Amino acid sequence: MPDIHSFFEEPDGTREAIMSATYHALCEYGYAGLTIQRIGEHFAKSKSLLYHHYDSKDDLLLDFLEFMLEEFEQTIPVDEQLAPDDQLDILLDKTLVDSLSEDQQDFTNAIVELRAQAAYDQRYRDHFTRSDQLFHDRITEIVQDGIEAGVFRDVDPDQIAAYLLTLITGAMTEQMTAETEFTTNVRAELDRYVESALLAGESDD
Amino acid sequence: MPDIHSFFEEPDGTREAIMSATYHALCEYGYAGLTIQRIGEHFAKSKSLLYHHYDSKDDLLLDFLEFMLEEFEQTIPVDEQLAPDDQLDILLDKTLVDSLSEDQQDFTNAIVELRAQAAYDQRYRDHFTRSDQLFHDRITEIVQDGIEAGVFRDVDPDQIAAYLLTLITGAMTEQMTAETEFTTNVRAELDRYVESALLAGESDD
Repeated sequence: MPDIHSFFEEPDGTREAIMSATYHALCEYGYAGLTIQRIGEHFAKSKSLLYHHYDSKDDLLLDFLEFMLEEFEQTIPVDEQLAPDDQLDILLDKTLVDSLSEDQQDFTNAIVELRAQAAYDQRYRDHFTRSDQLFHDRITEIVQDGIEAGVFRDVDPDQIAAYLLTLITGAMTEQMTAETEFTTNVRAELDRYVESALLAGESDD
Repeated sequence: MPDIHSFFEEPDGTREAIMSATYHALCEYGYAGLTIQRIGEHFAKSKSLLYHHYDSKDDLLLDFLEFMLEEFEQTIPVDEQLAPDDQLDILLDKTLVDSLSEDQQDFTNAIVELRAQAAYDQRYRDHFTRSDQLFHDRITEIVQDGIEAGVFRDVDPDQIAAYLLTLITGAMTEQMTAETEFTTNVRAELDRYVESALLAGESDD
């Protein structure tokens, strides 16, 4: 999850400023340590605005996740001019990142923690269902385009999308919660999978 | 993660009784709602024993995770008499479960929540690092045996293990935090992967 950071640096308007403050506070304190008060520390305008707009920390965080999802919808499409196999490659490069910057790591940590809330809070579960489904559908489209273009075999696009998304979720979770350093191996094996199970290719070794 | 439940039903000795009470309280309240007091509700002996043995809830939970890991070490090995490809198949059947019982779901929820603590708490990170490494090494062994027996291709066992474990972690996380219902598709695609990238096999369709 790179590139997230940049659009929080120069927030435009009140909602953006609140989202930016939430982002920075989340990176600093994580979910458990987060309070509206602490979000206020990163907010230049009147803190009463925060309490005016949001009933609780979760209320604000759910709006933040929604905001992130809207931003993602605009950034996920990669470059549609590219060949489908290159689009897929870029998407995997963006999501299976070997070493994250400190900012990216703090943020991804927070997302893993927010995702865990979904185990008990239906509102978070609804968000991550929608968010995963959106990401899933984007991969499905790329695979479908690839089949039509003859670069991918005649596979089931939904099945591939579910599989790849699960692998991405797993890699992100693993990276944030253990020091196993599997990512390089996961990416190498994923390339082998794409080669042997997905690409139409000429060679069949 | 099936089969976990059974060995908590007839705990043997004080530590087992504490572990059993922790298991039941964790299923009932999750990590966030858990207190030593609530663990005490599931503990037949004197509650002061809990406070005597553990300084905090996290202290107790880390011991609980350790206990679970010891139990797993005994249950993971599947049946070593089986052929390596069957061993792998059984292991995947056990970990990529389509529909969980309510107990299994409550417990897996709690594990996802405990894992998220690792994003900020080094003690949890140490545990999950050790636990994932152990599971990883077990898969590596199976793949190694499979290569030697000629049922698997000449692949990199560490790479396969990292990949499969990441997929399992992802499926578990996804299942507990979203209602996307990807598991059936993930398992189907995983079978296709095993077929095309792992099995030596005679056919190459």
